[in-house]
Formats: sequence, structure tokens, C-alpha cells
Amino acid sequence: MYVGRTKDVKVDQLPMEGVKKATIQWLISEKEGAKHFAMRLVTIKKGGVIPLHSHSQVHEQYILKGQGIIFTNDSQRELKPGGFVFVDENEAHGMKNTGNEDLEVICCVNL
Amino acid sequence: MYVGRTKDVKVDQLPMEGVKKATIQWLISEKEGAKHFAMRLVTIKKGGVIPLHSHSQVHEQYILKGQGIIFTNDSQRELKPGGFVFVDENEAHGMKNTGNEDLEVICCVNL
Repeated sequence: MYVGRTKDVKVDQLPMEGVKKATIQWLISEKEGAKHFAMRLVTIKKGGVIPLHSHSQVHEQYILKGQGIIFTNDSQRELKPGGFVFVDENEAHGMKNTGNEDLEVICCVNL
Repeated sequence: MYVGRTKDVKVDQLPMEGVKKATIQWLISEKEGAKHFAMRLVTIKKGGVIPLHSHSQVHEQYILKGQGIIFTNDSQRELKPGGFVFVDENEAHGMKNTGNEDLEVICCVNL
């Protein structure tokens, strides 16, 4: 068993072209013993955005804090605490903080 | 893409012998398109407990709210918001609410 605290986990800039003001913390990944899927905390600061992108992994996300939208090529949905999102494989998606505080999202991804 | 709200998801009693005052909501599972892993919200009310048990799936958990412990055969660790836990396959584990409010935990499991 591994027990950790988010505040002890390294904060990395989210490595993707076009990202503005977004960071990622890898809470649980191979290093902690995960083989099937990883758990990350993504934080998008006020005014920040993760541009439209796609990949072969799915996302399962839970909104912890803040306000924002998740968007596809032709639609958008509101995000707020208690909301959750399933993004299927190869489905284009992006996220934007539309509020005044950090948008914090638990984002799990298959490995 | 599937976007939902926790408050709209059916609340089930956690189906396990010896459980006291604990519920589960399946936020993302096969029904929403998940194939690799599922996301659930587990709520343990004041005085509630999930007894020691084990299974072949792993857990990746994030503490949203409340205070509690996660315990194994011979140890226990404190849980509070911002904490996270990796439980490996076949590793015995249980959880207990030790506070005065609900203990809310995002609990992901491989399918």
C-alpha cells in the first residue's frame, strides 16, 4: 500500500504545445506500483487552457475545485465540483478555466 | 464524451459483509464506455467502517472530504483531504471514518 499527500508531489508544467497556465502532478503511477492506470492532479490557473488534443488513452476525471469547460471540436460542457467526465480513446478534447480560482481536476488515464 | 454530476448518480449501500454506514456511487463504468477501469465515489458516514477485505483488483483512491484511516492486517494510515492511496492486488485493506462528517473517497478500480 502506498499513501501520499498531494502537497508533497512534484508540480510539473503540463507538457503540451499551446498549454497556458496548467500543471500536472503524478499522484499514482508505475513508481507507486500502478500497472493498469495512473492518477494525476491537473490544475489550470485562472485564464489557463489545455488546447484541443487527442490520444489513444481514455480519461476519467473528477472536478475537485473551480469552474471551467471541457470542449470538443463542436461542443462544450460546463465543469464544476462534483462533476465527472469520461473521455474515450482518440476523442479530441480540451479544457479551459472560466472562473476566478484554480480549476483542479483528478485525471486518471490507462497505462 | 460523457459528462455527469455526482448528485445525479444512484447511491447504493456498499455490498460487503460487515460494512457499516457506507455507500457507493458508480460514476464511470462500462455503462459510460469505460473498459480499463471504473471511477466510484465511496462515502463512509460518521461511525462507519469497511472491514478488512482483499480482491484481485487494485484501488487508486483520492480523499475528497472528512477524516479516517485505511488499515491493513498490521498497520494503519491517516486519511484526510488531498491524501491518496494505492492498494495493490490482493492486499488486505479496510477503511474507517474517525471524524464527525462524511468521509468521501474517489475510488478507482481496474475492470
